[in-house]
Amino acid sequence: MKIVVWNENRHENENPEVSAIYPEGIHGAIANFLGEEFEHVKTATLDEPEHGLTDEVLKETDVLVWWGHMAHDEVKDEIVEKVKQRVLEGMGLIVLHSGHFSKIFKTLMGTTCDLKWREADEKERLWVVDPTHPITEGIGEFIELEKEEMYGEHFDIPTPDELVFVSWFEGGEVFRSGATFKRGRGKIFYFRPGHETYPTYYNKDIQKVIRNGVKWAANTNTPTPVYGNAQPLEEIK
Amino acid sequence: MKIVVWNENRHENENPEVSAIYPEGIHGAIANFLGEEFEHVKTATLDEPEHGLTDEVLKETDVLVWWGHMAHDEVKDEIVEKVKQRVLEGMGLIVLHSGHFSKIFKTLMGTTCDLKWREADEKERLWVVDPTHPITEGIGEFIELEKEEMYGEHFDIPTPDELVFVSWFEGGEVFRSGATFKRGRGKIFYFRPGHETYPTYYNKDIQKVIRNGVKWAANTNTPTPVYGNAQPLEEIK
Amino acid sequence: MKIVVWNENRHENENPEVSAIYPEGIHGAIANFLGEEFEHVKTATLDEPEHGLTDEVLKETDVLVWWGHMAHDEVKDEIVEKVKQRVLEGMGLIVLHSGHFSKIFKTLMGTTCDLKWREADEKERLWVVDPTHPITEGIGEFIELEKEEMYGEHFDIPTPDELVFVSWFEGGEVFRSGATFKRGRGKIFYFRPGHETYPTYYNKDIQKVIRNGVKWAANTNTPTPVYGNAQPLEEIK
Amino acid sequence: MKIVVWNENRHENENPEVSAIYPEGIHGAIANFLGEEFEHVKTATLDEPEHGLTDEVLKETDVLVWWGHMAHDEVKDEIVEKVKQRVLEGMGLIVLHSGHFSKIFKTLMGTTCDLKWREADEKERLWVVDPTHPITEGIGEFIELEKEEMYGEHFDIPTPDELVFVSWFEGGEVFRSGATFKRGRGKIFYFRPGHETYPTYYNKDIQKVIRNGVKWAANTNTPTPVYGNAQPLEEIK
Repeated sequence: MKIVVWNENRHENENPEVSAIYPEGIHGAIANFLGEEFEHVKTATLDEPEHGLTDEVLKETDVLVWWGHMAHDEVKDEIVEKVKQRVLEGMGLIVLHSGHFSKIFKTLMGTTCDLKWREADEKERLWVVDPTHPITEGIGEFIELEKEEMYGEHFDIPTPDELVFVSWFEGGEVFRSGATFKRGRGKIFYFRPGHETYPTYYNKDIQKVIRNGVKWAANTNTPTPVYGNAQPLEEIK
Repeated sequence: MKIVVWNENRHENENPEVSAIYPEGIHGAIANFLGEEFEHVKTATLDEPEHGLTDEVLKETDVLVWWGHMAHDEVKDEIVEKVKQRVLEGMGLIVLHSGHFSKIFKTLMGTTCDLKWREADEKERLWVVDPTHPITEGIGEFIELEKEEMYGEHFDIPTPDELVFVSWFEGGEVFRSGATFKRGRGKIFYFRPGHETYPTYYNKDIQKVIRNGVKWAANTNTPTPVYGNAQPLEEIK
Repeated sequence: MKIVVWNENRHENENPEVSAIYPEGIHGAIANFLGEEFEHVKTATLDEPEHGLTDEVLKETDVLVWWGHMAHDEVKDEIVEKVKQRVLEGMGLIVLHSGHFSKIFKTLMGTTCDLKWREADEKERLWVVDPTHPITEGIGEFIELEKEEMYGEHFDIPTPDELVFVSWFEGGEVFRSGATFKRGRGKIFYFRPGHETYPTYYNKDIQKVIRNGVKWAANTNTPTPVYGNAQPLEEIK
Repeated sequence: MKIVVWNENRHENENPEVSAIYPEGIHGAIANFLGEEFEHVKTATLDEPEHGLTDEVLKETDVLVWWGHMAHDEVKDEIVEKVKQRVLEGMGLIVLHSGHFSKIFKTLMGTTCDLKWREADEKERLWVVDPTHPITEGIGEFIELEKEEMYGEHFDIPTPDELVFVSWFEGGEVFRSGATFKRGRGKIFYFRPGHETYPTYYNKDIQKVIRNGVKWAANTNTPTPVYGNAQPLEEIK
């Protein structure tokens, strides 16, 4: 399985508070803990040519992890379109935190993906609401994060195929924090935590969920549909 | 409730076979049977200014019915964007037959909306698979159409919120023919039948389903979510 | 539309704190606010013959509202079975609060319907997560209850057909508080609030949601499936 | 992973036509092709003590495969209850063909699980409608069976969590032939084909789907929810 961790990598370059937490970038931190379980993990960032997502890279990627925030608009439409085609073909996609507003997530969802938010150093507790789901393997009934950004309902997404986590926030909101979606042959997992000013991606449970998500999202040689004009399989009177 | 029936109205103008079946256009036929139950039914077509979907029209439309086929590409992107915003705000949308490939349906679904198809004068039987659904009010266990175009799986849509009809085709295929989706505050019903060379929209059961769909899709004064930065509702330590 | 509000009516008779809040019983309070919108509203209670749910009553009931808690086990299995058959035939069912552990809800769900709970006079805030749903008509983004019993995840129910409300609790939990299910031709709405020692059923938003739920749950003359041995509709070679 | 294939094993003993096709019983045939991929595969049958499903057997079973038909009523209620508890605890369950009417499936679904049926040596074609699903690994767009019993809609089950296959039948019906459900910590896969008088379980695609189903249904160390009275995690004012 070949994994690419994509990050816009801007906060890390512009905000010392962020680079102090993530000296190798958020992508570096994520690639590191994915590397504990998976052999082929690469990174790609916004400022690379074609954002690091060339046809060659996309073609051989099984699962793409996406983190972006302040520079969603700088991601080129033609790259977004290529990523979308690959998801529809069967590439798994893990969208993290502020990636809810990325072009790729919005175009795959068909909605605004808007939400409530607040940066107030508040507590988040992610409750498992689907204890059958392989994405919850190895964790407990909930994950607690001492300080995170708040995301609150209504989260403007289509009904998820599966709702895995619901967050409680200290300030009074709830949020559908872990949700899966199917598009074409592709499987998508949105996972809420990971504001850039908190060390969330060093949390062992968060790492476990993302590793589980990657495993879940990888396509397993499922059928490739054929579209267009079709000859009848049975005689038509 | 204010309803607009939109039609590209091209087959009717170019193909005498179609205009013989639908002398008032497909939009005219649909508006007629909607008018039996609803007071405010208008039509709009591709060649009108702004495709007949001005800001004023869209603003006061509760449910939009969409039929298009050969001219999907001529629908202007800015109009599609306005229709999308209105759906997300709460306007109901009924997408009929070849509207599966319309820009508005594809952008709301996030997928290709592709499928198999065949024009072979074959029999279609639409089976009700959700006998709780108000869209099935007043019909029997199935609807039979002696001759229709075939649409076959795989239909590249997201998992429907509700699957209401599944079609059997004489030539050997099946199709998810009636399916609902939620996007933002808007409710969407896709309904398969209605190839332009068959008198499908004169079938009483098909008419009943579309009237039911319009009723179901109308928003009923549900909450309008507030998005963006939010003050805490509870004290944060 | 004919509505029956069923209540075990035991807390009211045994606990003066409860009868002070609900002098006409919880069923009386619910019947009162349903009566503001619907013409035919009756009540039935555990200690009546056949629990007030005779064949005649069940046969003509369109929507049954259910409140029970301390006496679930006293509800006779044969009455539960009759209620279940009526739900499968198309009677709507609204299950309130501690009704999550009623025999009728458990047998329709197929799971334990277990959950976490706590009586600690804590605040509950029910967030709307589906702003398309007619059950949310006329309310705001959330409903706030100053004091309620806590119900927390994991709530052991099948995946709801629709998730309408998610609750935030002061003590740190979340809960899927408003959820719909389809069984046979019947529509079921589970709605969490309503502990017997709080005046929850006098809250105007709670009343509105229950009225909306009743309207939503009523069957609308949908098809009655035919089961069993079937003659072919097409020639088999 | 430990797998038990359960079969009532009555048609095989009473009908020479069936025993000619399945000389080792349907359970033997299924255990054989599961054994090609999994190490620990056992069988259990109705006429063994406790139907072969003792506490010890159930305790260590990860996935149970179920085939039954003419003797559903002979399965003891207390065994059904134990199997149900194990499913809710996390044991996977694969229900095949006429198992739709088994006590275990009906109690987990909460519905009648009724359907239309016909024995007429007709063709079935199972179309993949979810090409992301691991249960479809390694097969094509559809599976064709020259002769099978017909099962037709309406199939009285709750809305599946996932709909994987839809069948086309020569005689004019459709059926939701492959569907998944979650109950408690358990994953359930219903798969339609396998009438006792046809050699369906020797079909390589059918075998592949059942092997895939077993892999999919096995629980992967997901969280075990705690139920009942709960201390607050946050201070309540």
